[in-house]
Amino acid sequence: MVLISLMTDFGLIDGFVGVMKGVIWGIAPQVHIADLTHLVPPQDIRAAALILNRSAPYFPDGTIHVVVVDPGVGTPRRPIAARLGSQYFVGPDNGVFTLVLERAEHQDAPIEIVHLDKPQYWLAEVSNVFHGRDIFSPVAAALANGIPLSTLGSPISDPVRLSIPQPRFTSTGLQGEITHIDHFGNIIANVRDEHLRDKDYLTVRLGSEEIHGMVRTFGERSPGELIALIGSTGDLVVAVVNGDAAQQLGARIGDPIEIIF
Amino acid sequence: MVLISLMTDFGLIDGFVGVMKGVIWGIAPQVHIADLTHLVPPQDIRAAALILNRSAPYFPDGTIHVVVVDPGVGTPRRPIAARLGSQYFVGPDNGVFTLVLERAEHQDAPIEIVHLDKPQYWLAEVSNVFHGRDIFSPVAAALANGIPLSTLGSPISDPVRLSIPQPRFTSTGLQGEITHIDHFGNIIANVRDEHLRDKDYLTVRLGSEEIHGMVRTFGERSPGELIALIGSTGDLVVAVVNGDAAQQLGARIGDPIEIIF
Amino acid sequence: MVLISLMTDFGLIDGFVGVMKGVIWGIAPQVHIADLTHLVPPQDIRAAALILNRSAPYFPDGTIHVVVVDPGVGTPRRPIAARLGSQYFVGPDNGVFTLVLERAEHQDAPIEIVHLDKPQYWLAEVSNVFHGRDIFSPVAAALANGIPLSTLGSPISDPVRLSIPQPRFTSTGLQGEITHIDHFGNIIANVRDEHLRDKDYLTVRLGSEEIHGMVRTFGERSPGELIALIGSTGDLVVAVVNGDAAQQLGARIGDPIEIIF
Repeated sequence: MVLISLMTDFGLIDGFVGVMKGVIWGIAPQVHIADLTHLVPPQDIRAAALILNRSAPYFPDGTIHVVVVDPGVGTPRRPIAARLGSQYFVGPDNGVFTLVLERAEHQDAPIEIVHLDKPQYWLAEVSNVFHGRDIFSPVAAALANGIPLSTLGSPISDPVRLSIPQPRFTSTGLQGEITHIDHFGNIIANVRDEHLRDKDYLTVRLGSEEIHGMVRTFGERSPGELIALIGSTGDLVVAVVNGDAAQQLGARIGDPIEIIF
Repeated sequence: MVLISLMTDFGLIDGFVGVMKGVIWGIAPQVHIADLTHLVPPQDIRAAALILNRSAPYFPDGTIHVVVVDPGVGTPRRPIAARLGSQYFVGPDNGVFTLVLERAEHQDAPIEIVHLDKPQYWLAEVSNVFHGRDIFSPVAAALANGIPLSTLGSPISDPVRLSIPQPRFTSTGLQGEITHIDHFGNIIANVRDEHLRDKDYLTVRLGSEEIHGMVRTFGERSPGELIALIGSTGDLVVAVVNGDAAQQLGARIGDPIEIIF
Repeated sequence: MVLISLMTDFGLIDGFVGVMKGVIWGIAPQVHIADLTHLVPPQDIRAAALILNRSAPYFPDGTIHVVVVDPGVGTPRRPIAARLGSQYFVGPDNGVFTLVLERAEHQDAPIEIVHLDKPQYWLAEVSNVFHGRDIFSPVAAALANGIPLSTLGSPISDPVRLSIPQPRFTSTGLQGEITHIDHFGNIIANVRDEHLRDKDYLTVRLGSEEIHGMVRTFGERSPGELIALIGSTGDLVVAVVNGDAAQQLGARIGDPIEIIF
């Protein structure tokens, strides 16, 4: 069994994702397909890179992750596919794989990236605006069928990389920013548990709010209380117990968040 | 083939559900996975209990239903799994299984409930905030692989039960309440067809509206007309033909609904 | 392997679609199921017909498309199933299959349509309001199991057909209308690439806006620019690069769109 995951900014109203599944299962009927999300904000490559990086480690070896957030579709931006460690990645060369690539590099994992330039593995007709259907789905299905990366494209070593903002240390602690607001309205920062290790006590400052100390989970406080905790993938999270922190604080992606040790 | 159904309040934007599928298929690649819904209102255990109870009877024997609406995640609330009749249920011990359990009891079906206290069947690292990924998905996959309940946890007989409001008989008929508003804006009450059997004629009163008599289906009346009928799972439904009754009437979950015989 | 696609107006909050999957997999555990979309605007048969027509060609031979946009459920409108060329279609006889039927006719493909009048292939109890669960899902599963159409119903030759507006030629060009607005806010017209072939240059007029010339893809212009192009299924599209054209122009389905050659 091979598993293909799909992430796009296509939304759920138009049938675009269903069509990709039709194409994939037409070529590789044996695969399972898992939707990661199709509600990436339109054209938001950075959001897709962050979700992919958080999610990929929980998928089995051999998973093929297809990511189609692709404002440059139809322009000379390259379609690419990569093996990073034990998983495969297929999508546009626009930086969406930056974080999973950096992790593979950091772990000294095997890395192989190709420019998808072999149209015989694509649909016969390729539109200028829907490579998710015409290139990325058939290529993912070919990979699932055991066609090696080296047959699907030519090796490259210069994939596009996004610059993802890192928190910086200050005289009093750390200065980070909000990178994501989840379905519950929880606020996720680019500050990670490894930044906070060995800190007995800290204060999180966000707008005019200060949160003193951290909790381990939501249920330690009463509904409505503002809390800070480490989320399920090691990121700093600011939340309101059983509430919507982003709405309550008027917080937005990119807003600064300060940690005082 | 084993079927796993998933219901959560995780929404569709963050990839949380996709990650659960990655975990499940990594352990049990042979299963099918059906999303029930991931748009349960956040932390709304009662809504989840109602949807599960309406839906489970239509799934085949052996289905494993995973429900993760879990405001108490990371607190001492127990993770549990149950066999109720011919199906399995996995999730937090917070009452979300109350209605399916009561039905199994009512039908004298086999019942076996365990406290999931065997970490060897969980992911190696368990976060404090995402047991859907770290405990419930791997346990569901283990069940799908044929590991018996008794191996996954220790028997319990005191699962948490929700109190679900029942309609009460009055001198003129029945007093119920709105329990759900569906995607179409149809209003669902906690009044069931068995409450209304043998009633030749009745009036439904909701706010300032009165509906005289019931219809069998939407198309019996003209678009825009307010109707009362029995829905697809036996509940009393108030609807506007081709319209949104909840919006039109300003109806909300918990509002009283009165039946006059 | 057989593939079943599902399209409904049921939305994603109530578990209705999950229940259909439970029914299908209970009868035909070997199939794959692809969601096409469940966010068809309520009761919008024409929108469903358009999405189905755009999507079906990308699914493999033998795919069974189940479409449940069914305002007449429970009335005498017939449940039907059809073989159109190499694929199957199951749903209400309300015109939702008009476009795929017309294409099959145009291509002289094999056509077989039956009135589903054999209750032994349905669920034992059939509600008046949810034939997606009680009739269409079990029939699709029976088809997937190899039961022939002729066993599932009686032949008919008079399926209901929708009238879908066609563009008309004018002295200066073409007069069409908006048929769809997609997730990105792109505006899709009922004007097709074959209408525009051999036109060196054209102007698209929509409300008070004029777009001079067409582009091949989004990335040819700068973010925020208004463009016209041919979409991924051959339809004329008006878009704002990295923006929401429908919102920006206040465009709505049914609005006129004019092409000047």
